Amino acid sequence: MTKDGRPDEDGLIARYFRPLATAPGADRLLDDAATYRPPVGYEQVLTTDAVVAGVHFFPEDPPGAVAQKALRVNLSDLAAKGATPAGYLLTIALTDDWKEEWLSAFCAGLSADQDKFGISLYGGDTVRTPGPFFVSVSAFGLAPEGRVPRRTKAHAGQKLYVTGTIGDAALGLKIRLDDGVRTRWGLNGVEAEHLVQRYLLPQPRVEAAALVAEFASAAMDISDGLAGDLGRLCAASDIGAVLDAGRVPLSTAAKKAVEADPAALTSVLTGGDDYEVLAAVDADKAGAFEAAAARAGVGFTLIGETVPAFAGRVRIERGGHPLALDRLAFRHF
Amino acid sequence: MTKDGRPDEDGLIARYFRPLATAPGADRLLDDAATYRPPVGYEQVLTTDAVVAGVHFFPEDPPGAVAQKALRVNLSDLAAKGATPAGYLLTIALTDDWKEEWLSAFCAGLSADQDKFGISLYGGDTVRTPGPFFVSVSAFGLAPEGRVPRRTKAHAGQKLYVTGTIGDAALGLKIRLDDGVRTRWGLNGVEAEHLVQRYLLPQPRVEAAALVAEFASAAMDISDGLAGDLGRLCAASDIGAVLDAGRVPLSTAAKKAVEADPAALTSVLTGGDDYEVLAAVDADKAGAFEAAAARAGVGFTLIGETVPAFAGRVRIERGGHPLALDRLAFRHF
Repeated sequence: MTKDGRPDEDGLIARYFRPLATAPGADRLLDDAATYRPPVGYEQVLTTDAVVAGVHFFPEDPPGAVAQKALRVNLSDLAAKGATPAGYLLTIALTDDWKEEWLSAFCAGLSADQDKFGISLYGGDTVRTPGPFFVSVSAFGLAPEGRVPRRTKAHAGQKLYVTGTIGDAALGLKIRLDDGVRTRWGLNGVEAEHLVQRYLLPQPRVEAAALVAEFASAAMDISDGLAGDLGRLCAASDIGAVLDAGRVPLSTAAKKAVEADPAALTSVLTGGDDYEVLAAVDADKAGAFEAAAARAGVGFTLIGETVPAFAGRVRIERGGHPLALDRLAFRHF
Repeated sequence: MTKDGRPDEDGLIARYFRPLATAPGADRLLDDAATYRPPVGYEQVLTTDAVVAGVHFFPEDPPGAVAQKALRVNLSDLAAKGATPAGYLLTIALTDDWKEEWLSAFCAGLSADQDKFGISLYGGDTVRTPGPFFVSVSAFGLAPEGRVPRRTKAHAGQKLYVTGTIGDAALGLKIRLDDGVRTRWGLNGVEAEHLVQRYLLPQPRVEAAALVAEFASAAMDISDGLAGDLGRLCAASDIGAVLDAGRVPLSTAAKKAVEADPAALTSVLTGGDDYEVLAAVDADKAGAFEAAAARAGVGFTLIGETVPAFAGRVRIERGGHPLALDRLAFRHF
């Protein structure tokens, strides 16, 4: 316990983080390191992503949502690689004026997501920072051995699918930054809230992981905008793609926004923070894939196809005509 | 490429980080996630530690040393768990005024250490921060299955050993903060530089990992001061320890400082950043352990023994008399 009544590092671990270390290999965070061994037939998939206050989230966002965003952006990467999440390491940097109430809510958010996704904290580090609060998560999961879909493994002639709906988070961020757009887009409160929530809290498509591992040769999660991320997939595989903007799945709220304001379509196709899965599936497996997805209750929508490489790599069409966007990708950095 | 001529995130990855991703599972950082599988007979050991500019290092420190410190504090944790390092995930947060020259030197530091320790970058994230530069590393290594020495597995009647020399970094930090102490301690330039370097750049005892896995039931790396960390080991195992301050191995420079200024002994025993390994070895294995360490050329020094639990848990003696220190552990946080 420090002079101001807040716990010191050992106290913090004991009070807030030990209850999250449920896996035996985490040894109740009594140690400097955890142990892990993937079961036979599986390989470990590893990823890391950080979020910084004022950059990736609003400092006034609910602490539980901040925690869950930090965790979920990593789980989204795992899902897109066909991996079921298993555990994570957590680094948090607290500012001098950190409050126990805030940290308690932050950890409650982690705890709820651990239950939701069946994962454990495996270790962490708590540091002090004179700058903004940040969280860095390294997560790992398990995929059937040899079945991890790589960005590099797409080829011409495949069908392209996405999960969920695209563009909600980018539109939600626009509402957060300027509430006036809500009126301009003619959205009611529920619709606006849907978009704002989609920015606040990603929904990693963990339920899509097994389908992706079984049917997709290449996949990735969409975090920096559909058009730009599709361009990255194409670049990694040295192919091109044709994206049918008319097929891109939109929520009711996003549809209204795009109808009222054509510029919103650019945000939908190039904005960030979707955390949906983009998957390339061989044309001759598309039927079986769609049937399996329907059986599993996982919504995948066909949005285009891969073609041989061409300059620019991604052509966006609507009603058979090319659609020009003023930018391709949202840049986090 | 961004407007100011510096590369964007994809460009950064291609130019600076891709060359560091030498393991096949890292897939040249073309993907969101890496794959890894420990060989049969080994378990994976995982750890994470972050460093923040102005907190864990001086902003003017050489960028290569900053990179190596961020990496090595993690490798030190692995070594203390008997694990040989295999790879790491890296998150860096760049400020708006980041310089390519700085980042290039930072990555050169990583590259040199990858060669030195035989490891690969497996993935990472680059974010922007309005606060100080920070680096978060999650590292993993391999230990023989079932041989990971835990903090919780010490018991009364064991011998306590440490690698290297203790207190150098804490004294080096004091010189960095106030060059006057160097004169007070009567150190020449080479001695002062030795201490300063020990603060700047930890030397993780990777060479001790195999011995620790074979002979120690409990071990940890000393990062927050020998006395305090020994207290943590004792608390985790619910035992006590007697530490013989006269046996604690000191460098020539640290010896001079302690002789000139008895208060320096407190810094030596309670200061942070040693990154040496503390190991508890059964008394009946001590002879074989010492012989094996001598054969392997790894310097372990006997510094005390474990005893049944008592209030305070750690008694420090010198010449058979108790030694009182005004504080037990350096607090990073």
